[in-house]
Amino acid sequence: MHSLLDIPEDLAPVHGALADALQRVGERFDNHLASDLLAVNDLVRHIERYRGKMLRPALVVLSGMACSQTPDDPEACITGDLLVLGAVCEMVHMATLVHDDVLDEAAVRRRGQTVNFLHGNETAVILGDLLIAAAYHLCSTLDDPYPSRAIGEVSMTLCAGELLQLANRDNLSLDMETYREILDRKTAALIGVACRLGARSAGAPEARHNAMDTFGRRLGLAFQIQDDLLDLTGDEGVVGKSVRKDLEKGKLTYPIIDHLAKAEPQRRAATLRLLKRAADGDETAPAELVSVLRNDGAIERARLAAESLVNEARALLVPLAESGPKRYLSRMADAVVQRAF
Amino acid sequence: MHSLLDIPEDLAPVHGALADALQRVGERFDNHLASDLLAVNDLVRHIERYRGKMLRPALVVLSGMACSQTPDDPEACITGDLLVLGAVCEMVHMATLVHDDVLDEAAVRRRGQTVNFLHGNETAVILGDLLIAAAYHLCSTLDDPYPSRAIGEVSMTLCAGELLQLANRDNLSLDMETYREILDRKTAALIGVACRLGARSAGAPEARHNAMDTFGRRLGLAFQIQDDLLDLTGDEGVVGKSVRKDLEKGKLTYPIIDHLAKAEPQRRAATLRLLKRAADGDETAPAELVSVLRNDGAIERARLAAESLVNEARALLVPLAESGPKRYLSRMADAVVQRAF
Repeated sequence: MHSLLDIPEDLAPVHGALADALQRVGERFDNHLASDLLAVNDLVRHIERYRGKMLRPALVVLSGMACSQTPDDPEACITGDLLVLGAVCEMVHMATLVHDDVLDEAAVRRRGQTVNFLHGNETAVILGDLLIAAAYHLCSTLDDPYPSRAIGEVSMTLCAGELLQLANRDNLSLDMETYREILDRKTAALIGVACRLGARSAGAPEARHNAMDTFGRRLGLAFQIQDDLLDLTGDEGVVGKSVRKDLEKGKLTYPIIDHLAKAEPQRRAATLRLLKRAADGDETAPAELVSVLRNDGAIERARLAAESLVNEARALLVPLAESGPKRYLSRMADAVVQRAF
Repeated sequence: MHSLLDIPEDLAPVHGALADALQRVGERFDNHLASDLLAVNDLVRHIERYRGKMLRPALVVLSGMACSQTPDDPEACITGDLLVLGAVCEMVHMATLVHDDVLDEAAVRRRGQTVNFLHGNETAVILGDLLIAAAYHLCSTLDDPYPSRAIGEVSMTLCAGELLQLANRDNLSLDMETYREILDRKTAALIGVACRLGARSAGAPEARHNAMDTFGRRLGLAFQIQDDLLDLTGDEGVVGKSVRKDLEKGKLTYPIIDHLAKAEPQRRAATLRLLKRAADGDETAPAELVSVLRNDGAIERARLAAESLVNEARALLVPLAESGPKRYLSRMADAVVQRAF
């Protein structure tokens, strides 16, 4: 995420401290997964390709800095515990990515593509399990038992969100409330906990942990709405991963739900037919659908919803003392909805 | 496991206390997985069919009783912590069963069977994740941080064992040392930790935790060798699950590895051809193979190896004060190799 930002000169020190911290988070991550078995180490290397924006560790570190007594002194703020918490959050997130791959590979296979499905499947399931186990084990090495409880609880929430999403696959009557519930559990909860644990580790008062948790949740919701928008309207070359997957998988997202809720019966029926065609693999349907959603203003309304969540998030930072990390967090929040990838 | 035993009259009180404790372990298990989401609760109910012998919770409870100061007073021995630890070990075990199902369903699909593979796959992956998360979360609620560390570490060991096994699928030169390594990580380590945590929770001295861990590991190895033997030679109706799956999946087990290591070159080549036929789905190959292994004495040698591990395990109980739970543990150890299911 940090790499998406144009960094003004006054934030260069924070940027440098963050980059250094993320580098060390990555080392903790790798060290904790290193195994005495060659077979395991070979497989663990597969995981490296999943490491991307490091959004969650960045939020742990920046929340810790912004909530500390000495926000502009990275030496004092960036403790070993903060790095461990960053690695733990990234491991949990990466486990979900690895297991999502299993679900997605299944869909790809449904279209008859020739993936080595069996081997990929098995490896992905156990690698994901190894990441979850490593996350918990690393977290349990901290003196404070609180992070273990928080990470255990949020992982259950995350799974519940995934199950709720699975239960609503191909549900063309999915309402906005359930969609928000899925996003809140599946994406926002872990991002909230990342911010909470950062604030807590910095010794901030409890009210501040809760405020940072809410900051993270709002940001997480906005992030996921933007992610869903990019899947729908993005360019594969720019987004950097295959797009239009949600339509293939029968997953309704913000603009579609909003459009269906507001459309006249005839328009609604026509859109439902378009969705069915897209789910059945009709290659012209997605572009038609996006055009319908644009004309209806539903794409724009989704963008505004994400923007409004980011504004809510940023408002929660106001009570924090002015500092570089605080301004950096605020810019990161903006970047979530401004990004094209 | 306890239900496999002929219970002599003097052990009836231990049996009753254990049955009661396992009932309460089951309740903790269910309560911790209960969700506010209907979709999740519906899916969690799928898991109930996986609950079987409750070997691991039984070992937690019996180890706790046998290592306590008052082994024959269940009221004093069977604490809330012991029940939580039992539920945690069962959750971890059940997560591996659920994810093993994903791997096994893949194999079944490879033979073209008409399982609703896609839906089963996705549900199984996320349900397994939910079980792992629930295990860690429940464990982290204990005041003592030690169990969280032990369960986190053993889960990593378990995954490493699974990956080592996957890496050796279809490896017809698998040696006995690697086979033992796989079993030790994949099965024995968790059973060892179950016994260790039981002893620790009872306030036993540290040397006793280690001895009970080794007891559990030996028992676990014996258990898995017997499991593999039943897969090879058992009757589907008696074993209660499909047999000859290891051959289909290209998994070599004790008697085959032992036979191949000792066979003359011509006999070895013939057996390798039989294994290939079995892996390719030839339905007459398994019976031929079993007959070869019987005539060679390899089946009997595997049985003796399991028996010898059980003897090693039982020897570790000797220093414990005489008590009903100690005698019960000893009988359970015997049952592991005497069972036909």
